[in-house]
Amino acid sequence: MTISLSTSAFQPTEMYFLLRDSVVPRPIAWVSTISDDGVSNIAPYSFFNVVCPWPAILGFSCGPRGDNHNTRQWAPKDTYVNIMANKAFVVNIVPESMTDAMVETAADLPPGQSEFPFAGLTEAPSTTIKPPRVLGAPVAYECTLYDVLDAGSNKWIMGTVQHVHIDESVYVGRKGNENHRVDVLAQEATRPVGRLGRANYVRLREIETKLRRDGPNQ
Amino acid sequence: MTISLSTSAFQPTEMYFLLRDSVVPRPIAWVSTISDDGVSNIAPYSFFNVVCPWPAILGFSCGPRGDNHNTRQWAPKDTYVNIMANKAFVVNIVPESMTDAMVETAADLPPGQSEFPFAGLTEAPSTTIKPPRVLGAPVAYECTLYDVLDAGSNKWIMGTVQHVHIDESVYVGRKGNENHRVDVLAQEATRPVGRLGRANYVRLREIETKLRRDGPNQ
Repeated sequence: MTISLSTSAFQPTEMYFLLRDSVVPRPIAWVSTISDDGVSNIAPYSFFNVVCPWPAILGFSCGPRGDNHNTRQWAPKDTYVNIMANKAFVVNIVPESMTDAMVETAADLPPGQSEFPFAGLTEAPSTTIKPPRVLGAPVAYECTLYDVLDAGSNKWIMGTVQHVHIDESVYVGRKGNENHRVDVLAQEATRPVGRLGRANYVRLREIETKLRRDGPNQ
Repeated sequence: MTISLSTSAFQPTEMYFLLRDSVVPRPIAWVSTISDDGVSNIAPYSFFNVVCPWPAILGFSCGPRGDNHNTRQWAPKDTYVNIMANKAFVVNIVPESMTDAMVETAADLPPGQSEFPFAGLTEAPSTTIKPPRVLGAPVAYECTLYDVLDAGSNKWIMGTVQHVHIDESVYVGRKGNENHRVDVLAQEATRPVGRLGRANYVRLREIETKLRRDGPNQ
């Protein structure tokens, strides 16, 4: 039996919950930015993925400040304000060991206060852009703004990867014909944490390898 | 120690592998479409997520046919050709129990041959659009084309959700103030399978609930 429903049967909050709870598991972009005044900001976004591998473009959906899903009126979050000001952001990958700190950075702090010290995080300098990255992230992508799409209640923010930081604990180096390979699954502490529905997160444990069309486990 | 690399240190294939292996775990859009000649098609895409919750917009990245990551020359996959022809597609959520069938649908079949019978899948009719959905998917989203972005080697395809099919096994109904809630984690067989790097997939098992800013486990 299938329950079939028109989108018009949903209130905005209901649709948000449906999507949040069914489009899973989601990767988390831990997005660090900096304001014109030099105040850093970091917050997690899980409506996030690769938009294109070459040139490397990452995208994430930034909702309105306050998360009132029924009015969905646009009030910019610090992340959005800072990206518009600087045209740059870092996507940090969240290791399991930093899950609690990542959840803390979702706090609604006043614009003048950075989530870095609030969540016990250490800033590391970026190489090509102003926003700092997170010390201890297994992989961090320095991005410059590629484009922003007005998509309904949200902004779909895309950045072109300019520079990559890879922690040596996940760096494999050459594998086959490719240099610079990573293995983020090798150790449990550095495995990225995934976002599920409700207030749930997932640790990557039951991992299965499938024979794919693109050949053996490349 | 951090290995810091400019994007220019990467070949396209190397960058693809880096993104594929570190932006994890990814949700899978099992995208079903139909050609002008009435031939159905289905294929998995894991560079996929919610672009906006209201109106509900889903997006996924469609690479060139043949997956030659170093030339990245554009040759359209059937999914892309069909969406351009019909302006519609279904995003089916992949339950654990259908993981093998999903992997089979990544096969490079000739355009005249549907992956549905090839992978032992049954088509179910959609309500508002022509492409069929997958019988047995816990949730299926009927989408009409919202927009396509030329993003480097890929197309970022976005669709507006028009209609939703929810299998009764994951339908919760009213919860708090919201109708139509789902719980895709309730049973293992209907849990969505996640995509990792290489040829790896993940079953959702070690699930942790965190106290989030938006309150208790809504």
